[in-house]
Amino acid sequence: MQTPTTSSAPEAVEHPHVDIIKVSARSRSTAVAGAIAGVVREHGRAEVQAIGAGAVNQSVKAMAIARGYLAEDGIVVVFVPYFTETTIDGQERTAIRMVVEPR
Amino acid sequence: MQTPTTSSAPEAVEHPHVDIIKVSARSRSTAVAGAIAGVVREHGRAEVQAIGAGAVNQSVKAMAIARGYLAEDGIVVVFVPYFTETTIDGQERTAIRMVVEPR
Repeated sequence: MQTPTTSSAPEAVEHPHVDIIKVSARSRSTAVAGAIAGVVREHGRAEVQAIGAGAVNQSVKAMAIARGYLAEDGIVVVFVPYFTETTIDGQERTAIRMVVEPR
Repeated sequence: MQTPTTSSAPEAVEHPHVDIIKVSARSRSTAVAGAIAGVVREHGRAEVQAIGAGAVNQSVKAMAIARGYLAEDGIVVVFVPYFTETTIDGQERTAIRMVVEPR
């Protein structure tokens, strides 16, 4: 059985680095959707990071909305979630990263 | 601007119906991951439904884990979230559906 922390994300290695869109539980999903769509239009892909249920929820809503925005430009995107470890205020936290990229 | 409720999900029309995996905030993510992997192995795709932040969070964790399970079988899956309306106890609720399908 694979544990969350060993999930691999080959996409993160294959593509050039772009800034990660960090989403909190208080982020507006339409604003995040606009950011995702903008980054995908410019760089061909985007990456979203969320820690905690509220942030993950806002991220997923934003991705569903961003999919609509990008579809208007003929860009069909899909999503690849994976776990990653990050350090916040000196504490190790498990974050969810979601890659947004063309199908 | 596209509103959440008008997000389309062409995938839901193009593919044969399979049972929807309903996830709650109390669902174990590894159990849901096993269900997703099983349905994808049998039917080629799966669909997950979540209402509320806790349920969406468990769904996304499950999808990240299921991606690992399926990768062991050489199946690379991606995720397509969309909004849908559902009626629970006579009340209209907005649910998040997540299609899991091969890239």
